[in-house]
Amino acid sequence: MKRRAFIKTSSFTALGVSAFGIRDLYSKPVAGGNNVKVNEQRLVSRLAELAQFGRDDQGHGYRVAYTQGDIDGRAWFIEQMKRAGLAPTIDAAGNLIGTRKGKNPALKPIAFGSHLDMVPDGGNYDGPVGSLSALEVIDVLNEHNLRTEHPLEVIIFANEEGGTIGSMAMAGGLTPAGLQQKSQNGLTMAEGIKALGGNPDNLQSCVRKKGDLRAWLELHIEQGGILARENVQIGVVEGIVGIVHWEVTVEGVANHAGTTPMAMRQDALLAAARVIIAVNDVITAVPGNQVGTIGKIAATPNAYNVIPGKVVLGLEIRDLAAEKIELLFREIEQRAAAIATASHTTVRFARQANASKPALTNKTLQQAIQAAAKALGLSTKVMQSGAGHDSQEIAAIAPVAMIFVPSVGGISHSYKEFTKPADLANGANVLLHTILAIDKDN
Amino acid sequence: MKRRAFIKTSSFTALGVSAFGIRDLYSKPVAGGNNVKVNEQRLVSRLAELAQFGRDDQGHGYRVAYTQGDIDGRAWFIEQMKRAGLAPTIDAAGNLIGTRKGKNPALKPIAFGSHLDMVPDGGNYDGPVGSLSALEVIDVLNEHNLRTEHPLEVIIFANEEGGTIGSMAMAGGLTPAGLQQKSQNGLTMAEGIKALGGNPDNLQSCVRKKGDLRAWLELHIEQGGILARENVQIGVVEGIVGIVHWEVTVEGVANHAGTTPMAMRQDALLAAARVIIAVNDVITAVPGNQVGTIGKIAATPNAYNVIPGKVVLGLEIRDLAAEKIELLFREIEQRAAAIATASHTTVRFARQANASKPALTNKTLQQAIQAAAKALGLSTKVMQSGAGHDSQEIAAIAPVAMIFVPSVGGISHSYKEFTKPADLANGANVLLHTILAIDKDN
Repeated sequence: MKRRAFIKTSSFTALGVSAFGIRDLYSKPVAGGNNVKVNEQRLVSRLAELAQFGRDDQGHGYRVAYTQGDIDGRAWFIEQMKRAGLAPTIDAAGNLIGTRKGKNPALKPIAFGSHLDMVPDGGNYDGPVGSLSALEVIDVLNEHNLRTEHPLEVIIFANEEGGTIGSMAMAGGLTPAGLQQKSQNGLTMAEGIKALGGNPDNLQSCVRKKGDLRAWLELHIEQGGILARENVQIGVVEGIVGIVHWEVTVEGVANHAGTTPMAMRQDALLAAARVIIAVNDVITAVPGNQVGTIGKIAATPNAYNVIPGKVVLGLEIRDLAAEKIELLFREIEQRAAAIATASHTTVRFARQANASKPALTNKTLQQAIQAAAKALGLSTKVMQSGAGHDSQEIAAIAPVAMIFVPSVGGISHSYKEFTKPADLANGANVLLHTILAIDKDN
Repeated sequence: MKRRAFIKTSSFTALGVSAFGIRDLYSKPVAGGNNVKVNEQRLVSRLAELAQFGRDDQGHGYRVAYTQGDIDGRAWFIEQMKRAGLAPTIDAAGNLIGTRKGKNPALKPIAFGSHLDMVPDGGNYDGPVGSLSALEVIDVLNEHNLRTEHPLEVIIFANEEGGTIGSMAMAGGLTPAGLQQKSQNGLTMAEGIKALGGNPDNLQSCVRKKGDLRAWLELHIEQGGILARENVQIGVVEGIVGIVHWEVTVEGVANHAGTTPMAMRQDALLAAARVIIAVNDVITAVPGNQVGTIGKIAATPNAYNVIPGKVVLGLEIRDLAAEKIELLFREIEQRAAAIATASHTTVRFARQANASKPALTNKTLQQAIQAAAKALGLSTKVMQSGAGHDSQEIAAIAPVAMIFVPSVGGISHSYKEFTKPADLANGANVLLHTILAIDKDN
């Protein structure tokens, strides 16, 4: 019951950090820790606590990056970090970083965490699960007087949902042009970073060089329905897919829908329908986990009584292998050319500038996750991440790994997203024991 | 050269109606008139003159019903009617009516004309061709001192493009609810009718009973590309198609386009694409001139990275036979149900309230048009009208017929619509000689 007090914000100041004797821990030796477990109830309670910050018109959580809800949620998290003895700092990109000293200051830090911001229609699991589990790991280590060899860093990346902005900055990829882009809430990225207490004029100070970190580990909800459907407890992520977008423009001839005989039409929507089906056929024709989606469509002039003259589609292809994306695209392009010829229309593909490259996770770290899960008696599945993550950015500068827990019904980016408490605890335990295993390895 | 003076607005008042000696004509006998021809140059010049009224941002003609451009164009037409001795009046629905006495006042009037208003992106032929040809017929009769047995009425219907409002009123079909609907320019129909000088509070006064008119004849551009492609000079319209609209709602499940495997998707847009193709397949599977169009589409949430959860389509079917429309729709419905089952989506069809029934033209009048064209050495084709017309409304109260002339490239409802001067003259000559033939028959 005492631990329930953790979720009462009002009691934080009264308790004070020193009440937990965190500084004392650092002088004690790290124990074996094989039977150490996270506190499921505390983890779930903190998720509920965090969900109180930010509300939209429907009463759903609203912690879109750089909004007041985001700022309030981060302030609460900073308090939690302080209580865990993490002495949090905010880097130039607005990332929250809490450090726990290791026994050997010469070793590189093991970093882990996730993000707190959400999409406008998002839920309380995407980001918070990895963030609060990271905090939980620190609390458990504190409670068990476990001290690692490596320093530990809990990193909460800023504005993940708006383009992995914080992790991109840490990996040295956030450009002056990127800083001037508008974020979801209307501020530029630079303005948003300032609102979080960062300093966009000194981004260089937050950049980590390749090799600065021993590892980056991120626990996250799957966001897909595979683990839940197959009744598997832990997903071991082999890589994060690359994403390429194309704007597809189908042009025919707009004409009177009453006076133009069927045989004389150059119907852009009919041709576009064949392209949509061709995309599905091409993507599903070969084995693998690749996905291809037409998520956007706009027809012109878009009236009952006019044959559409122009249709613009949004095509997205994702895969772990960049070459496969290109191969699939070329096949789609060929099919579309044949459709255009047959329908007396034209089809043009314009590749969008926002492509992200696939990022493979580190094999040794994957094995550590597998072993940790096995030791905990949990079933695992090696799988890809179809969604983008901060880990994708950090893969450029450090060995990374991701742990997935099941999303009920595969629902994601919705206030309905949900992961069962036992699955949350499983994921956090795997995170904890993977950290301990890596720590022993080196 | 004298006739060129007709197109100079400034000279109208100076010339005065009596200068043409129109009243004198009525006392003279009608001559044979087989060699009487319209004045092509005058007809073309008047089309150009009318095109000067109303302009949109791009400098294109803008005579949308009830706008200042419409009012100005009508004022100019009224002057033309006065000069032709037609003594124009405006009925309660805003229709312009000019009457030319016949030798036998006991006979029912032969009415002909069209409309002057246009769609927002319209051209200078749809409506004006029939309206100015009607005026041309009167002028030629005047010039040749020809007097018909029947009274003649030139009728210019108000707001054809906004729902055949003027002809609907004349046929007794314009309801109080219809009067309160908004027209294209923002006014209600009632307000628009007032702006034209009509009286929406006394609509009953403009209603013609069944049998009041001997015939209604309308010359119009084809608006399709059939006559031009087949190199036929005159289209003899056998009927005006009925039109039914359905809103088609396809519902699947919106989900993350990265994390949802292809086999687990319930993609509303993919299902909608199959419905679009099914509509085309069903419509083209049977012989006939029926047309079916998906002209509208909207996907939700419509983003690159989200599988569409909902797609709404606009389906239109047109045919001369109402039963055929129903038959085709039932086949589409069945195909859609199979698509829904196979794709784990649902498809719902909501029939819209704006359906228009097919209207057949009068066989005897069709034969008169055929004979007139033949006597003039013109080729003909019996065809349907895929577009709606005032004739559709008037068919409820009088024998109607329509004469089509070729539209270059089948372009319609566009400032690019065009009909060659020789074709315009052919159409007006067929109109003239059909009127003379009907007049002799009875």
